[in-house]
Amino acid sequence: MSKNNEEFVKEITPQSEDYSQWYLDVIKKTKLVDYAPVKGCMVIRPYGYAIWEKMKEGLDRRIKETGHENAYFPLFIPESLLQKEADHVEGFAPEVAWITKGGDEELSESLAVRPTSEAMFGEMYSDWIQSWRDLPVLINQWANVVRWEKSTKPFLRTSEFLWQEGHTAHRTEEDAEEEALQMLDVYKDFVENDMAIPVLNGLKSEKEKFAGALRTFCIEALMSDGRALQAGTSHNLGQHFAKVFDITFLDQDDERKYVWQTSWGVSTRLIGALIMVHGDNRGLKIPPKVAPHQLVMVPITPKKQREQVLEESDKLYQELKDKFRVKLDNREEHTPGWKFNEWEMKGVPIRLEIGPKDIEKDQVVLVRRDTDEKMFVKRDELIDKLEELIEDIQNKMLQTAKNFLEENTHTASSLDELGQILEQKRGMIKAYWCGNQACEEKVKDDTKATIRVIPFEAETGGSCIACGYHNDDNKEVFFARAY
Amino acid sequence: MSKNNEEFVKEITPQSEDYSQWYLDVIKKTKLVDYAPVKGCMVIRPYGYAIWEKMKEGLDRRIKETGHENAYFPLFIPESLLQKEADHVEGFAPEVAWITKGGDEELSESLAVRPTSEAMFGEMYSDWIQSWRDLPVLINQWANVVRWEKSTKPFLRTSEFLWQEGHTAHRTEEDAEEEALQMLDVYKDFVENDMAIPVLNGLKSEKEKFAGALRTFCIEALMSDGRALQAGTSHNLGQHFAKVFDITFLDQDDERKYVWQTSWGVSTRLIGALIMVHGDNRGLKIPPKVAPHQLVMVPITPKKQREQVLEESDKLYQELKDKFRVKLDNREEHTPGWKFNEWEMKGVPIRLEIGPKDIEKDQVVLVRRDTDEKMFVKRDELIDKLEELIEDIQNKMLQTAKNFLEENTHTASSLDELGQILEQKRGMIKAYWCGNQACEEKVKDDTKATIRVIPFEAETGGSCIACGYHNDDNKEVFFARAY
Ligand SMILES: [Zn+2]
Ligand SMILES: [Zn+2]
Repeated sequence: MSKNNEEFVKEITPQSEDYSQWYLDVIKKTKLVDYAPVKGCMVIRPYGYAIWEKMKEGLDRRIKETGHENAYFPLFIPESLLQKEADHVEGFAPEVAWITKGGDEELSESLAVRPTSEAMFGEMYSDWIQSWRDLPVLINQWANVVRWEKSTKPFLRTSEFLWQEGHTAHRTEEDAEEEALQMLDVYKDFVENDMAIPVLNGLKSEKEKFAGALRTFCIEALMSDGRALQAGTSHNLGQHFAKVFDITFLDQDDERKYVWQTSWGVSTRLIGALIMVHGDNRGLKIPPKVAPHQLVMVPITPKKQREQVLEESDKLYQELKDKFRVKLDNREEHTPGWKFNEWEMKGVPIRLEIGPKDIEKDQVVLVRRDTDEKMFVKRDELIDKLEELIEDIQNKMLQTAKNFLEENTHTASSLDELGQILEQKRGMIKAYWCGNQACEEKVKDDTKATIRVIPFEAETGGSCIACGYHNDDNKEVFFARAY
Repeated sequence: MSKNNEEFVKEITPQSEDYSQWYLDVIKKTKLVDYAPVKGCMVIRPYGYAIWEKMKEGLDRRIKETGHENAYFPLFIPESLLQKEADHVEGFAPEVAWITKGGDEELSESLAVRPTSEAMFGEMYSDWIQSWRDLPVLINQWANVVRWEKSTKPFLRTSEFLWQEGHTAHRTEEDAEEEALQMLDVYKDFVENDMAIPVLNGLKSEKEKFAGALRTFCIEALMSDGRALQAGTSHNLGQHFAKVFDITFLDQDDERKYVWQTSWGVSTRLIGALIMVHGDNRGLKIPPKVAPHQLVMVPITPKKQREQVLEESDKLYQELKDKFRVKLDNREEHTPGWKFNEWEMKGVPIRLEIGPKDIEKDQVVLVRRDTDEKMFVKRDELIDKLEELIEDIQNKMLQTAKNFLEENTHTASSLDELGQILEQKRGMIKAYWCGNQACEEKVKDDTKATIRVIPFEAETGGSCIACGYHNDDNKEVFFARAY
């Protein structure tokens, strides 16, 4: 480790010393976000937003490929509309920001800044849907939402965040269930293959489900500190909203029926997962598919050969720039060593060095951020090599995260054991549960762990971790402490 | 015109009968937008949002090509922050929506829902900018903004709308001026070449400039009813915001200086312009570059040959779908004639018909929305022909709009004449102005026309339209009644 590197690393608190401070150091120093002068709100800076743009691309493509269209619904929801679904309003009321004044005028009815848009979609769908021919309605929106949070942390929990929310309406219960499960698969595919984050998928418990849903499906990821993070949710809303918003259709059998609905969303929270799953003491590590720059070029420019190297590196940049997302860093005010460290910290998957000796030998130097491996590559093999490397880094990052998840998945057969594992190593902990909400709450009170997910193909039959009762229907679920 | 067509057209009020109602009929019946159950807010439905997505693509590419990066700044701006720049707050205060409550808690300071983000960018830039090496800062954001409007009309004036807002900081006055003018050029290029809407560009008068700007540049378009519409603005902010937000940098000469800033934006309002520039009594006419579907395929399916035609049209669809944005309409419940009318109303540039006879002759039928021209095209020439047509339609739509603008540009040499032209034919009216705000206001009071733009290369020397005084510096400016 060079001296420069030492200086850099000092700026980031080591994970082992204070994980939370490490996280805050990383996001601030890599210029992903900054704190805004508004309680709990963040500014997503260009480097952070560029990651979000790549994520949007990958996810938007999948959302459209599965037949959905984008639209835009209003930011404000009248109080009376939000109050129509009782569970829903109870769940969200404590965290709603309210508009009470427009210009100089006091509003006769307060407007909620949308915490989520089921109510607004419900109201419009009741107008738009008349016949079975109108179904399914498959709409998504990319939007900002606001939830007035007491304690916040950039990306993970902020008063305003960006997300996509899909809202669909179907003819039958089966169609809605199929849609909710399909979108969970879309999320899993996107998060695993584009973000290199392995996830567990399955059902949420009644206690943890979305306010107003019949069933909530989710994907859950494990951060490198052993805490879980809910990475995406897909809800089968049943007919709850259809009934209160009166969304009906005339079916082929000439009967008027309520539609079946789903909603599903992922948010900028996923960037928090990206940081915590892949990052290390040197900073970010971004998978190539969502990296703003897949490689960064750092010319090595001794004074005498400066012109020659800059000319050559610019030539190379021109060759590469249409094939890869490449950044040429030819700033004069920083040394190559300083740049190496900065781009490592910013998590660029590949560094390309080119200096006088490399030009002589018709080669470049490549260094991987994920393994630190250093390679000398001939110029005429460079493009192939880069393509291969990008794929390999993407795969290896997922594999590394998968190994971590596996190594940090434990089994507990008693509440004591569960508590011990949580104290010593955290991670995902498999344990049997009788399905009783009192047992779920007892685990939480004793250990701060919640049921993260009930797997689709859960093992059955063991004794409940909390009450000890044995039942053939008891399911093996995943407990963890969560963000 | 077929019987079906007659029935369809009846649903849209003719332009000549009630232009405003025509506009409202078109946007509602083509499902571009719907009214939301919130005062002055709209739902942008999938067809409308798909146009916005194509527009975003074209504009975002140009914004990035000119060196800007995207970011995301908070929705809420504390009252104290907004009040820092006096002109700015005075300009926007009457139309701000205020958050006064979060959850159950009354806020100690009200938060404005951003009507524009100069204040928030200013606050962050004062932190981020320290040295001349940090400049220029070139950031854009795509966001929703809220302006509490008394009277609203979808796309043209709504309480919430979508836009992009660029905010830049520069080292010198010249750099800022160059940036503001560059972005005006970007807007002109985008609006003319992608949206096929010709624009006049130039300067706004002091009266019409942005609240807090030094100078506002704009592009102005002419709608088919003869009223003007401001299509985009680019502001040289000078050092107004730099001084109140204390945005300074240490220059190369070791002196601390204030930055020079610009901001610039276009919004979903442009969709309103698209409708009113190109639309006719049959509905929308969308230029191919921003059309959600560049062509629609309508299979002609007599009962006996139904299977064969559907098979063949699906085969053709597979051939075309990666090269064009193509929609295959094989709905069973509607006749081809009904579909022709619907897609005409929705403004799809090209209709492709394929029936048993066409299959026999190895051809398809193409019909242009802009000229109604009908063509028989051999299958092996189809792709080339479509490419050619798409380009031709795009060019012809711009040319048609340019001709309209030219034909509806008039010259007035007295206030009476100006008034007469406005009463009889509206349009853009060139007239000399002495530069005096009293004269500008007199014209507005007498005729409801405002100065839309002061051209960069204005003619000089005539007598002022309002006061009659002759001066060699008097400029020929464009007056119009505007949206
Ligand atoms: Zn139990
Ligand atoms: Zn005058």
